[in-house]
Amino acid sequence: MKKIKTQVGIIGAGPAGLTLAHWLKKRGIASVILENRSREYVESRVRAGLLEQNTVDIYKHLGLADRLVKEGQEHHGVYLSFDGNRIRVPFGELTNGRNITIYGQQEVVKDLTDAWLAGGEQLYFEASATKIEDFDTPNPKIHFEHAGEAGIIECDFVAACDGFHGVGRKTLPKNVFNEFSITYPFSWLGILAHVAPSSEELIYAYHENGFALHSLRSEKVSRLYIQVENDDRVENWSDDRIWEELSIRLGTEGWTLNSGPIFEKSITPMRSFFTDNMQSGRLFLAGDAAHIVPPTGGKGLNLAVADVKHLVDGFVEFYKNNSLKQLDNYSTIALKRIWRAQDFSNFMTTLFHKQDAHGSFQYHLQKAKFDYITLSKAYAATIAENYVGLPFEVFE
Amino acid sequence: MKKIKTQVGIIGAGPAGLTLAHWLKKRGIASVILENRSREYVESRVRAGLLEQNTVDIYKHLGLADRLVKEGQEHHGVYLSFDGNRIRVPFGELTNGRNITIYGQQEVVKDLTDAWLAGGEQLYFEASATKIEDFDTPNPKIHFEHAGEAGIIECDFVAACDGFHGVGRKTLPKNVFNEFSITYPFSWLGILAHVAPSSEELIYAYHENGFALHSLRSEKVSRLYIQVENDDRVENWSDDRIWEELSIRLGTEGWTLNSGPIFEKSITPMRSFFTDNMQSGRLFLAGDAAHIVPPTGGKGLNLAVADVKHLVDGFVEFYKNNSLKQLDNYSTIALKRIWRAQDFSNFMTTLFHKQDAHGSFQYHLQKAKFDYITLSKAYAATIAENYVGLPFEVFE
Repeated sequence: MKKIKTQVGIIGAGPAGLTLAHWLKKRGIASVILENRSREYVESRVRAGLLEQNTVDIYKHLGLADRLVKEGQEHHGVYLSFDGNRIRVPFGELTNGRNITIYGQQEVVKDLTDAWLAGGEQLYFEASATKIEDFDTPNPKIHFEHAGEAGIIECDFVAACDGFHGVGRKTLPKNVFNEFSITYPFSWLGILAHVAPSSEELIYAYHENGFALHSLRSEKVSRLYIQVENDDRVENWSDDRIWEELSIRLGTEGWTLNSGPIFEKSITPMRSFFTDNMQSGRLFLAGDAAHIVPPTGGKGLNLAVADVKHLVDGFVEFYKNNSLKQLDNYSTIALKRIWRAQDFSNFMTTLFHKQDAHGSFQYHLQKAKFDYITLSKAYAATIAENYVGLPFEVFE
Repeated sequence: MKKIKTQVGIIGAGPAGLTLAHWLKKRGIASVILENRSREYVESRVRAGLLEQNTVDIYKHLGLADRLVKEGQEHHGVYLSFDGNRIRVPFGELTNGRNITIYGQQEVVKDLTDAWLAGGEQLYFEASATKIEDFDTPNPKIHFEHAGEAGIIECDFVAACDGFHGVGRKTLPKNVFNEFSITYPFSWLGILAHVAPSSEELIYAYHENGFALHSLRSEKVSRLYIQVENDDRVENWSDDRIWEELSIRLGTEGWTLNSGPIFEKSITPMRSFFTDNMQSGRLFLAGDAAHIVPPTGGKGLNLAVADVKHLVDGFVEFYKNNSLKQLDNYSTIALKRIWRAQDFSNFMTTLFHKQDAHGSFQYHLQKAKFDYITLSKAYAATIAENYVGLPFEVFE
């Protein structure tokens, strides 16, 4: 049996686990990462690509932002559309110069993986964590299987960054947390297409046919989404039908949507999920293991990185002053931002999706909110500041 | 048959009808008011008493604000409470010095009625408008009954300021508008009590037992409300039970609720209602005839006065330039503010009432919104600016 000793045992080599490992290393704390998928799988897994100002600042601080800065696209505003009326919410003037950067999550994962391995650090791909033990003692253990062999990580702390389906969430004792979730009555059909984006910034649109989002990946690749029924299937959507529907929903006077070959097509359900406690003893959950937000606000990766920030603060405090105080407070601190993000994601989802009938009272409330964005600098600022991400100080 | 000729025939001597009459008079336009209730009834009808900055400014402009300024209480902020945590939203700094004034609606009605009659103008109490005729011609007529006699007002325009149950709304042709409504799954038990208010400013509170509101009428009279079930009855609520519940729901550390003799107790359902068109030919609806908001945002009277502002603009334009253009545009202009008020009233209602289980996902969204008020000046500003009322320019 392979036995590994480290300070922090990390399960999951997604953004949460990798960011945690790098940040701990910078603060002189050792860690080892287990990832149950292959490197190829993780690095090609298509996810959102919206990095908040906080997130970009953290990667710069960690010296991991070279390619991000070079290839990422800084956006200074976002377009919002309702019934074909398109407006822009500028970020800079509403948030004291904060912005977002469009850079695919899989690119972040590639950069962090490369840097981690280049530094000679331990990361085991295709290594399934099977059991987390003794996390109510100072010597927790992670059992895993790797290349047909059983292994064990003996560590001071376990960070479960292993997603909604991971062993971390399943291990958290049932009596220490409550779970909350909403499943929305619609899904997203997302596509990647070989075509130049038709907009320099994202476009969120409500249309009587349903929601649509124009996003982008690079100068040559566009990422777009449309609201579909939960029981809809990719087979029902020919490329032509998709482009036509996108064109209708995103349309506004004097604007044309570029179309091109679609090379990825998938349907994703929309849900919100969180636990009101993310830790027990020396086990800590971070990222998707503890919370899921609908992709509408682009908060998933950013929340994971914010969790990691609070975890790092706690680990540093422990190794410096032998105090668990800050770690004990981890969930309480992290949940402030998580609740804010849950509310904002729910707000953006509710504002731009067709849920009640077009023209109903609920529709008029949606429209009234949209119109209010155009009437009120304060209201536009609430959207901008949530979208670019509230500074950490705000929650302290 | 009594026959009356005037320029604008007004049905209803509530705030909408009386304000319209006075404003038209100031602009040299004649009107006559019919009111189906007695003067005593109208002047003693207890309603909200929150005047927006716009509304106060209009009464000052009309020379009708002497007593309002003397006896009304200008409030510079509002308290919001959630699970016993009480915060204050200051108006001045968030809205460039705009405020609200607490002055009972029945006092407004008294002042306006006194001034109208003192000026020798026509106002018929206990005069039921029975039929509005020929409003698709330049010579509409209002049929009414007064003191056992039939009468008729021949006028250029009809302003139906006669509330939700009035003949105005019933007369609007079914094919020119859509109606929208929500009935909330809770009601308000409201009391008036002979006791000095326990707070100088209003307190809106969410508590796991339900919503409560501490309002006030004068230095010696308090007005308070608690959320009850729709099928609850006043008989179920002894004075002691009411004070105990108010004390629990409004409570915060170091604060005591004064109690005293309750002299009015009633249960009011909560609903939202509006029509998306408030006019046909020469018939115009204003105030409760066209829209109802739940009292949570204190918008009812203020929306009525805003409707009147737009109607006056239209009538002045007609009599000055013989143009119906501005009157034709009345609904479009008025609805911008009505939609905003519907959304704000719904927001305040949803934020502070217990609808889903305490501790549910929805509860956490409510709490996240409350917490966000404390975190964000922009968000607090959206509450302040809606509460004191957005300036007319904003909607132009």
